[in-house]
Amino acid sequence: MNGGRETVAVLGLGVMGSVLAGALLEGGHDVTVWNRTPGRDAALVERGARRAGDALDAVRAAPVVVVCLYDHASVHETLDPLAEQLRGRVVVNLTTTTPNEARDLAAWAAEHGVRYLDGAIMATPPMIGTPGAAILYSGDEGVFGEVRGLLDVWATSTFEGTDPGRASLLDLAMLSGMYTMFAAFLHGAAMVGADGVSAGDYARRAAPFLAAMTEMFALDAEVIDSGDYSDPVQSLDWSDLGHLVRASEEQGVDPAPIAMVEQLRRRQVDAGHGAQGFARIYEGLRRR
Amino acid sequence: MNGGRETVAVLGLGVMGSVLAGALLEGGHDVTVWNRTPGRDAALVERGARRAGDALDAVRAAPVVVVCLYDHASVHETLDPLAEQLRGRVVVNLTTTTPNEARDLAAWAAEHGVRYLDGAIMATPPMIGTPGAAILYSGDEGVFGEVRGLLDVWATSTFEGTDPGRASLLDLAMLSGMYTMFAAFLHGAAMVGADGVSAGDYARRAAPFLAAMTEMFALDAEVIDSGDYSDPVQSLDWSDLGHLVRASEEQGVDPAPIAMVEQLRRRQVDAGHGAQGFARIYEGLRRR
Repeated sequence: MNGGRETVAVLGLGVMGSVLAGALLEGGHDVTVWNRTPGRDAALVERGARRAGDALDAVRAAPVVVVCLYDHASVHETLDPLAEQLRGRVVVNLTTTTPNEARDLAAWAAEHGVRYLDGAIMATPPMIGTPGAAILYSGDEGVFGEVRGLLDVWATSTFEGTDPGRASLLDLAMLSGMYTMFAAFLHGAAMVGADGVSAGDYARRAAPFLAAMTEMFALDAEVIDSGDYSDPVQSLDWSDLGHLVRASEEQGVDPAPIAMVEQLRRRQVDAGHGAQGFARIYEGLRRR
Repeated sequence: MNGGRETVAVLGLGVMGSVLAGALLEGGHDVTVWNRTPGRDAALVERGARRAGDALDAVRAAPVVVVCLYDHASVHETLDPLAEQLRGRVVVNLTTTTPNEARDLAAWAAEHGVRYLDGAIMATPPMIGTPGAAILYSGDEGVFGEVRGLLDVWATSTFEGTDPGRASLLDLAMLSGMYTMFAAFLHGAAMVGADGVSAGDYARRAAPFLAAMTEMFALDAEVIDSGDYSDPVQSLDWSDLGHLVRASEEQGVDPAPIAMVEQLRRRQVDAGHGAQGFARIYEGLRRR
């Protein structure tokens, strides 16, 4: 299928779905578009997309169906009535779901003879089609190979494994990290903002500093994978973050982000792991 | 003073203090060392440092006194009895303190005719003397200019303003961000670790991704500095992080880091700011 002109249906024309459909049009493919709420397809139709009357009409002529809906429930609501028509076709689901939701949909697809690939988008809509965009896939590896030519118009495509939940899991873990880091930035900006430092000035300092500090992940990872958390130099006992919480409060800033970290640290100290290093928090986060 | 051989006293020989004293020796300076608990100075004395009998002995012959103690209280305990002897001398305090503690010590110094510079180290001990190390300074700008030659043996030195608390404030804001980002990494690693992905594998993905995402700080900063938080595309209403919390729980992983972010988001939505963008959380963090 690589390189050829394909017929693709795109279900869901939110900001991301519209950008995905547009990139397929630009890649020279026949694209049929559908959205539950009408009126979102005018620009795409003008660029050459076919407007489907309903979801059934959209998928009827398309061997590949791309799904980018609001959430997991909307995917079931849209696809369940089409199960018979989808038999033998490929469904690439780019809707943001949890790993278990992706597995549920893969099981539903298998039950109905639908060939299923789950995708997780590591990019904002404007990044689609640019070198910085990445999309992770998991599920049916044969399908991934077959439709690779389509996928590559959007982003760098990587296959993460046959567990359909894997792409979503990696995606959600990294998105959680991203949002937590964004909250950390806003917290630092508020701390210095209380003393009149502009957010722009702070961003110019914090961005390169935090980017450089991501190199420390590999060291923590080595400790975690070895299972030996002993750290005589920078033990949890000696890494009290109370002064950071106190400094935030003195600035009149809610210390929630750093207080959360201090709480995780203290929980490990209270559990008798004070002589171990910061990475020991990993074990504390795992409940099972 | 730049370029010449100086006589410097270093008070405090913890891991960081010892590294600072060692770098001064390597820079060709006369270094006298003192630590409250004896027995920490053997390696430095072997490298040419003079061992002081007590803190008073250490500062007597040194026009510049570098202080790197456990905390703010230890600085007062050590320096208060030396106030008369320190009159006219320079104190460079690199002890980790809050901004208010730095201001308190600067006021104490002014009262006793001590010339005070507060420093905040943006580096781990092994980084001292390498290109990646930075130390922020604030307080007496004249002192900064005079002792610059000494400071530059440690790191890139920048003067951040005459408010003695400024260096510490910037440092603690960025350290808070760093620890919060580290907790975010451990959380993501635990999420994928529950499905058998190694922390090393996850670090190789998360480090470049989060490093790239620090570029978004500048966009949030622009919004904050403009005061206009409206965001029709990615509003807080549409950025529900509940699926990230749920995915973490489904993996058997404490969702504390991302739950903290979701709570900050929800607080803004509940306060009627749901149509505004993620950066609106900045205002929510500021209590004053």
